[in-house]
Amino acid sequence: MNHLSNEMQACIDECLACYRTCLSMAMNHCLEAGGPHVEKAHFTLMAECAEICRTSAHFMLIGGAHHKRTCAVCAEICDACAADCERVGDMQDCVEACRRCAESCHRMAA
Amino acid sequence: MNHLSNEMQACIDECLACYRTCLSMAMNHCLEAGGPHVEKAHFTLMAECAEICRTSAHFMLIGGAHHKRTCAVCAEICDACAADCERVGDMQDCVEACRRCAESCHRMAA
Amino acid sequence: MNHLSNEMQACIDECLACYRTCLSMAMNHCLEAGGPHVEKAHFTLMAECAEICRTSAHFMLIGGAHHKRTCAVCAEICDACAADCERVGDMQDCVEACRRCAESCHRMAA
Amino acid sequence: MNHLSNEMQACIDECLACYRTCLSMAMNHCLEAGGPHVEKAHFTLMAECAEICRTSAHFMLIGGAHHKRTCAVCAEICDACAADCERVGDMQDCVEACRRCAESCHRMAA
Repeated sequence: MNHLSNEMQACIDECLACYRTCLSMAMNHCLEAGGPHVEKAHFTLMAECAEICRTSAHFMLIGGAHHKRTCAVCAEICDACAADCERVGDMQDCVEACRRCAESCHRMAA
Repeated sequence: MNHLSNEMQACIDECLACYRTCLSMAMNHCLEAGGPHVEKAHFTLMAECAEICRTSAHFMLIGGAHHKRTCAVCAEICDACAADCERVGDMQDCVEACRRCAESCHRMAA
Repeated sequence: MNHLSNEMQACIDECLACYRTCLSMAMNHCLEAGGPHVEKAHFTLMAECAEICRTSAHFMLIGGAHHKRTCAVCAEICDACAADCERVGDMQDCVEACRRCAESCHRMAA
Repeated sequence: MNHLSNEMQACIDECLACYRTCLSMAMNHCLEAGGPHVEKAHFTLMAECAEICRTSAHFMLIGGAHHKRTCAVCAEICDACAADCERVGDMQDCVEACRRCAESCHRMAA
C-alpha cells in the first residue's frame, strides 16, 4: 500500500484505533456501567465519534480529493468526545484515543 | 420514528437514495461501461459520494449534535459528483440523485 | 438502476428501512426509555441488526456473487431482533420492520 | 478494551488490516492498472471483501451474540478474494492479507 503517504497511513491508524476504542467502550463498558454512561448526550456522541473515525479512515483509503473535509469533522468530534469522556470519568482509553486521533486529523486537514 | 422531524426524515431519504444510486451505478454501470467511467478521479469521487451519503444518513439517525457538519460535507461532495457525472455523460440517474441530496443537505446544514 | 431485479430492489428497500428503524429506535427511543431498553443483550442485538441490514443492502447494491450469504445472516438476526423487541415491549415499529426484512432476506437467500 | 479476548482482538486486527488493503488496492492500484484489475467480477469481489471485513470487525467490537456468523461469511469471501487476486496477479499484498484474515475468521467462527 505504498500509494499512501506515511503521514496518511499514520492518520488511518489513529482513526481506526479510535473507532475500535469508542465503539467497543460504548457497547461493552458503557452499557454495563449504566448511569451517566448511557445518558443520551454521552452515548450518541460516542456513536458519532466511532462513525466519523470509520468514515474518515475510509476516505483516506479511497484516495480521492475530499479526505481533508472528513478529517476536519473527525478532529472536531474527537475533541468533543475526549472532553465528554473526561467529564463522565472512567473512560481513560477513550480520552487518549480521541486526543491522538484529533491531533492527527487536525494535521491532515490543514 | 416520530422522534425525527419531517425535514430530517426527508433528508435521510435523499441521502440513502443517493447512496444507492451512486454505489450501484459505480459498481454495475461504470465497471461495465469502462473507459472514462473507470478513470480514477471519476470512480473515486463516486465512491466518496456513496460513503458520505451513507454516513450523513447515519448521523441523522443517531440523533446527536453533529449532523449539520456531516450534511455540509455531503452537500459539497454531492455537488462535485453531480458535475462530474454530467461531464462523463450517460449518468443521468446519478446527476439527479446527487442534486436532490445536495439541495436537501445544504438546507439541513444551514 | 435497472441492472438490479425488482425482487432485489424490494429487498434493499426492506434492509434500509430496517436499518433506519433499528438504529433510530436504539439511539433515541431506547436511550431515553432506559431500563430494559438499554440492557446489554437487547441493545447490542439492535446494533447488530442495524449493521447487518446496512451491510446486506450494500452487498446487493455492489452486484457481486455473495449477497445470498449476507442476506441469510441478515434474516437470522432480524428474526432474533423481532423476537427480542417483542419481549421488551413498546418497540412495535422495530418488530414490524425486522419481520418484513427477515421475510424478504429469507427469500433472497434461498 | 480488556473486555474482548486476545483471540478476538487478533481477529479484529486481521479484519481491519484486510479491509484497508483490499479497499486501498482496489481504489488506487486496480483503478490505475486497469485491464483485468477493473473487470467487474474481480473488482466487485474486492469490494465485497473490504465490506465484509469492515462488518466482521464491527460485530466483534459490538460484543453481541452473532459475530461467529459474520466471521464465517468473512472467511469464505476472503478465501475467494485471495484466489482471485492470485489469478489476476500483481496483487500479493491482497493475497496475503486475505489469507491471514480468512484463517483468523475460520478459527473465530468454529
